[in-house]
Amino acid sequence: MFHYTASYTDLYQLSMAQVYFKTGRVHERAVFDYFFRKQPFDGGYTVFCGLQTVLKVIEDLYFSDDDIRFLKTNGFDPDFLNYLKDFKFNGHIYSTREGDLVFPTRPILQVEATLIEAQIIETLLLNILNYQTLIATKASRMKQVAGQAKLVDFGLRRAQSTAAYHGVRAAIIGGFDATSNVKAAQDLNIAVSGTMAHSFVQSYDHEIDAFRDYAEHRPGDCVLLVDTYDTLNSGIPNAIQVAKEMQAKGQQLLGIRLDSGDLAYLSRKAREMLDDADLASVKIAASNQLDEKVIKSLKEQKAPIDFFGVGTSLMIGKPDAALDGVYKLAQHNEQPSIKLSESIEKVTIPGIKQVYRLSDHQGNWIGADIIALRSERSFSTMHSPNDPLKSMNVKPFRTKALLETVMKDGKQVKAPTPVSEIAAYAREQLNKLEPEYKRFDNSHIYKVGLSDELYELRHQLITKNKSI
Amino acid sequence: MFHYTASYTDLYQLSMAQVYFKTGRVHERAVFDYFFRKQPFDGGYTVFCGLQTVLKVIEDLYFSDDDIRFLKTNGFDPDFLNYLKDFKFNGHIYSTREGDLVFPTRPILQVEATLIEAQIIETLLLNILNYQTLIATKASRMKQVAGQAKLVDFGLRRAQSTAAYHGVRAAIIGGFDATSNVKAAQDLNIAVSGTMAHSFVQSYDHEIDAFRDYAEHRPGDCVLLVDTYDTLNSGIPNAIQVAKEMQAKGQQLLGIRLDSGDLAYLSRKAREMLDDADLASVKIAASNQLDEKVIKSLKEQKAPIDFFGVGTSLMIGKPDAALDGVYKLAQHNEQPSIKLSESIEKVTIPGIKQVYRLSDHQGNWIGADIIALRSERSFSTMHSPNDPLKSMNVKPFRTKALLETVMKDGKQVKAPTPVSEIAAYAREQLNKLEPEYKRFDNSHIYKVGLSDELYELRHQLITKNKSI
Repeated sequence: MFHYTASYTDLYQLSMAQVYFKTGRVHERAVFDYFFRKQPFDGGYTVFCGLQTVLKVIEDLYFSDDDIRFLKTNGFDPDFLNYLKDFKFNGHIYSTREGDLVFPTRPILQVEATLIEAQIIETLLLNILNYQTLIATKASRMKQVAGQAKLVDFGLRRAQSTAAYHGVRAAIIGGFDATSNVKAAQDLNIAVSGTMAHSFVQSYDHEIDAFRDYAEHRPGDCVLLVDTYDTLNSGIPNAIQVAKEMQAKGQQLLGIRLDSGDLAYLSRKAREMLDDADLASVKIAASNQLDEKVIKSLKEQKAPIDFFGVGTSLMIGKPDAALDGVYKLAQHNEQPSIKLSESIEKVTIPGIKQVYRLSDHQGNWIGADIIALRSERSFSTMHSPNDPLKSMNVKPFRTKALLETVMKDGKQVKAPTPVSEIAAYAREQLNKLEPEYKRFDNSHIYKVGLSDELYELRHQLITKNKSI
Repeated sequence: MFHYTASYTDLYQLSMAQVYFKTGRVHERAVFDYFFRKQPFDGGYTVFCGLQTVLKVIEDLYFSDDDIRFLKTNGFDPDFLNYLKDFKFNGHIYSTREGDLVFPTRPILQVEATLIEAQIIETLLLNILNYQTLIATKASRMKQVAGQAKLVDFGLRRAQSTAAYHGVRAAIIGGFDATSNVKAAQDLNIAVSGTMAHSFVQSYDHEIDAFRDYAEHRPGDCVLLVDTYDTLNSGIPNAIQVAKEMQAKGQQLLGIRLDSGDLAYLSRKAREMLDDADLASVKIAASNQLDEKVIKSLKEQKAPIDFFGVGTSLMIGKPDAALDGVYKLAQHNEQPSIKLSESIEKVTIPGIKQVYRLSDHQGNWIGADIIALRSERSFSTMHSPNDPLKSMNVKPFRTKALLETVMKDGKQVKAPTPVSEIAAYAREQLNKLEPEYKRFDNSHIYKVGLSDELYELRHQLITKNKSI
């Protein structure tokens, strides 16, 4: 629903592009890596998300007449603007599958294109992938602890402006079941869900009349909000009364919603009251400042909650609110390129690379990815990129290449995968990952290392560039 | 650039609307208040922002054919869908001026419309106002400490998806000078700015060649990034060399940019080196994980930085990342309405209200707003809404009404104000506010209280509703 044109970028991409254009470097090729440096939420894994969104935007990208006019008023060169009028991204993109689990340092996606093309898509690529990956990861953390309970996104009102539109997609891929966001559900083919607001109950003189009217006119999605006045003494008794009236008409009250107070205590009390009234089929939904830690605690207390409605913390990805994904030059004009830094963690990994996931001979994931040059075929040792004392023998393991061609000459190589399939793939990967990586506190650190050849190349380029 | 239709909402707004429709309550009127409960960033003030965006969206709001089709497949009633086809918001909106400083509890904006209309706009109103207000406040905090230095938004790559589009508008209103975001600048008529990336320097064999090419082909916005290899031994000496070459051609190097390392130390060193080379006019820009606390510290250390480029922390409003703005029913069918809660802070303030700012007879802002019924004309005492022991004699003070009509019968009452004027108004208000409210730590708490009449009304309704 957001209309992207190629001006969805930082100005400097276009300033640099103009210099490349004016100095006859239009055809120079480059390879950029997309990766991040720090796990969000101090977690042990990250769910890669946003790939299909970004590929679609890149495939359709162009400079509109308005874009060109604006750049003209900002002093861009007429010849260069003529070039931009016909701009199209014609490069290749290699990527990890959307929904796969990814880890710091390793390239998640690679762009191979002209230097200009690769720069012009940088900002939008980061903008889209950083946010969706953050939210899918947040959603996945909640899914992990929610057990059989369903998760519903209620975050549109607290989302950062229009971000929720993509946030909903990411939440579903991370494991959410539905959203209250009508527009996102409609465009992305996602289940939509919702209950009622306190204002609805307030607009009646008596709570029970509000419940009765709702039951009569929205019987199919009837979840009654029971905490407007007094949950245990008014809300639940009234809901039970209406549930009985619905039964008499052959209808079924779907549930009640708790939105304040001690959710563990109230949900237990509500369950007892409903069960005592022979309403075991009536579900309990809970909302109010939930996140994965609150949900975990509620589950540990055996709170009988069937639906969690999660708002703010999901859609804004609290507390991080941003993934630190970056896009770095790895190769230019057939030559591997490196960026130095004061700290070894920020020195980039040069060259055109492939990433392999290691498993033992039974096919069990051992918790390690090896980054190698694309030209390499077999590996003996994996080296920590930042700690020369750490290495691991990888000969005993099977390897599976993770980067696959997703765009060739500016065209996507396959039809889009439905969001539900991406979500299923993410769930499957998460099931394979050992539990110690999924802990919220002190999660185990997944190993990411360099092949012998790549380690050596990086070392050479560090030495060479330090003397420039 | 985001296309809003009325399905930009939570499903429950439409479910409730259907019940109102089917029970013959289409013409019932309601008044809702928009307010927040907690200052963002633990600060002492908040900059209200997003009003014009939301008014424009509401004025143009409709249900598209796609919206109607989607609702049909989700079981909505055909008569109700026919009603939605012709839906238009015909209500009135009273609001605080955009750019004004606002404080917890007091209504910032009021919607007076049919119950259905008021519910249908709730979610989008919260979505737009919460985000822009958060970001304008964040920007304002940076502006406060930046002194004469210019502030430039670099946040698009880390923004939450398309949120940056509105985030830039809010940043300018909060005090930023420019953005790197081309699309937002273009649509919102904001200054656009940018430098170069490390990849640009990496794409040359020698740093100085990168600088020379940039200076030749983008001389007008030439800010050279000096930290790709070695800031003090390579980057700055090369920039000085190129600055001299530009001078020889009658051109002027605009600046250098530092993006890593100790910015206080490096900026001082850079300033010395530039000054020693008779390049006092060359500016110093700094970026890398900046926020208001880092900027404050750099200013305290007298770091000679002329431009701060701020990315992530601005566009996502770190660390809060959301404003807790809510929209609560205050009156229904001519009757004041209240929502109770376990905690007094969450009990709403009933009735149609006006908010007055108090000043002394010299016109000085005394740091207090009084919330009164719209029908009241004079005030003697202001009562803390949540602490019965706290009250203040307000007879000695002048009052100025803060809520003005901004939409009448669904139409905006005046032409849009340019963003630059809103920013100027915000700056003017901030200059009037006493410094103790602007401190980052333990900022003074601005007083917000209720008039005698309103205090009494709320008390009555609490008593009455507790016995429902």
